[in-house]
Formats: sequence, structure tokens, C-alpha cells
Amino acid sequence: MPAKTDHDARRRDVSAAVWKVVAADGFGGLTLRAVAAAMGGSTGLVTHYFPSKQALVLHALEVAEQRTQALVPDTTDLRTALIAVLPLTAETTELNRVWVSSWDVALADPQLAALEQARYRRWRTRLKPLVIQAQNDGDLITGDAMDLAAGLAAFTHGLVVQALVDPRTFGRKRLELLLDAHLTALRPRR
Amino acid sequence: MPAKTDHDARRRDVSAAVWKVVAADGFGGLTLRAVAAAMGGSTGLVTHYFPSKQALVLHALEVAEQRTQALVPDTTDLRTALIAVLPLTAETTELNRVWVSSWDVALADPQLAALEQARYRRWRTRLKPLVIQAQNDGDLITGDAMDLAAGLAAFTHGLVVQALVDPRTFGRKRLELLLDAHLTALRPRR
Repeated sequence: MPAKTDHDARRRDVSAAVWKVVAADGFGGLTLRAVAAAMGGSTGLVTHYFPSKQALVLHALEVAEQRTQALVPDTTDLRTALIAVLPLTAETTELNRVWVSSWDVALADPQLAALEQARYRRWRTRLKPLVIQAQNDGDLITGDAMDLAAGLAAFTHGLVVQALVDPRTFGRKRLELLLDAHLTALRPRR
Repeated sequence: MPAKTDHDARRRDVSAAVWKVVAADGFGGLTLRAVAAAMGGSTGLVTHYFPSKQALVLHALEVAEQRTQALVPDTTDLRTALIAVLPLTAETTELNRVWVSSWDVALADPQLAALEQARYRRWRTRLKPLVIQAQNDGDLITGDAMDLAAGLAAFTHGLVVQALVDPRTFGRKRLELLLDAHLTALRPRR
């Protein structure tokens, strides 16, 4: 069915343009005109697939979520799970830049805020058993596992923001050293 | 000089409207039209004082910086300095919401990125002597003071983001408990 195929192919083109724009200019730069320009098409073509700014934003967040899920390591190791979040590659730097940028739209829109709230809750819930495992292995101090998961998520995302804002000060090696020093500081000392 | 007075008074009105808009809708919602609507004036009046979107953004960041500086506690105590950053009051919640929102525009604009980079460097530099003091007092583990300052800034801002996104999960009491538990975990254990 060529028509269907054309439709799917074109939607993929528009989707790629949406991602290109948000990865380069953030959600503040995500407009129908910018997406059309990024794919050398018309705004009419873009609105055919994404009828509003809100639809563009939701699609960009969907793509970000898909790309993020694809990078979540299948691991029971806390360090491995946290290292995977840091902007140590071009791909994770781009993803983090999109997520940090998304907080502006999320805090201004109840529907988007609920999505981000659920995303954070899923992340802390995914970290919790890794925290408990690390505690059982004697690698992490005792304490409420969800509180520790929230604190480790906070440390990691706070480091992400500083690295995106100041990549020369927070290069790949220093980010790994800072995370490792933090996990060492949280080890039970005997 | 009534003319001068009128000018100053009106500029204060426009400035107040800029802050009202950015505090409510973030930088994504900061437009000449929104500012004009917030003060019941014309976009022409707004452009008379702030001729472009960029001028509005820079002014909002200036106001945020002034309000932030006014809240920086004159203290040598690390906990006091970090507690002051958390969204524990309506004022600090509003300020944090504006700063987190500003990362979208900062990451998309080299001039704004340089300002945010300098702001983070000033914060870490201000925390460093407090870190050293805490180490000398035996309240904080040894280690590079600037690395510890970066880590404490990361933990604090990461907690700020989770609290803004999920205020019910991260109420005032829990934020203080999480920071105190974190500082306790970073104490030298003997």
C-alpha cells in the first residue's frame, strides 16, 4: 500500500525534524516553522501530522522517552545505572539537554508536569532495588532506600545540569570521578 | 522631575509584569504580548522598555539574580547555605522555578549559557570555603573542596527539580530531612 508507506515515511521525516529542532534549540525553539525549515517542508505538512505546538511538544517528549528507555542498562549495579544517565556520550548529552530543557514546558503545563512527575517516580522506583542490593552487599550506607534513590537521582541530575552548562569544567573523566567519589563517600566506613 | 518619575514608575510596572509572567509560565511563556496583558498595557509600551524577546529574557534573569542575591544568607555554615537554596518558601519556590525554567533558554543561547556558567561557578566558589570550614570542624569528609562543592550543589539543585515537579512527594519537611541525611552521610565516621 504505497499511500500508507508514503504516509509513514513522511511522518518519520517530520518526527526526525522535530527531534533535530528540540535537540538543537530546546523546547523554546520548537515551533511549526522551525520544524518545517528543518525538513525543508511547509508548515502545512507539519501541521498535517502535528496540528499544534502542544502536539509537537508531546511528540518530542515521546521520542525522548523512547530514546531514554533504549539506553537504560539492564543491570542490578547501582553505579552502572547512574553512569548511564550522565552526559558521557553525544547521544546521552543530547538526551539530557532535551530533558533539562523540557522542565520549562513541564512546569508551565499541568499535563506535561504530570508526565514528568511520573517519569521521576519511575526512575526512583527503578533505582530502589539497586540501592537495597548495594546496601545488602555492604557497598552503601543504611537508610530508607527510596530516600537514598531520590538523593542519588538528585546528585546525578544536578551534575547533568552543571555539565550541560559548563562542559569544559565537567568533562567525561571528571563526571565519572565525581560520581565514584560520591558513591565512595556513601559506603559504610568500618 | 515628573517625566523622569513617570518613566521610572512605568518601567517598574513593566518589570513587575515581566517577573509575573516568567514566574507563572516560565521563559517559554515570556512574550511581549503576555507581559502587556499582565499589566493591562500595550505591546508598544513593553517594547518601549524592552525592545525584544531577548531583552525581556535578560531582564527576567537580572531580576532573578537580584532576588537570589537578596536571599543568600550571610553565613559560614554549609547547611545554612544549602537550606537557603531549597524551595521551602513561596519566594524560593518561585525563584527556583524561574532558574530551572531558564536552563531551556540558556542552553539555546551562547550569551545566556555564559551567564549561567558564571552563575554556577560563583555558587561553587562561594560554597568552597564553607566546605573547607566544615572539613576543618570535622563535620565533612576530606576530599577536594571544589569537587565536594560541585557535588553538594548538584545534590541540592537535583532535589530542587524533583520538588518543583512533585511538590506533594517532596514537601518542606522531607526536603530538610533529605538534605540533613545527606550531610550526615558525608560526615567523617569514627
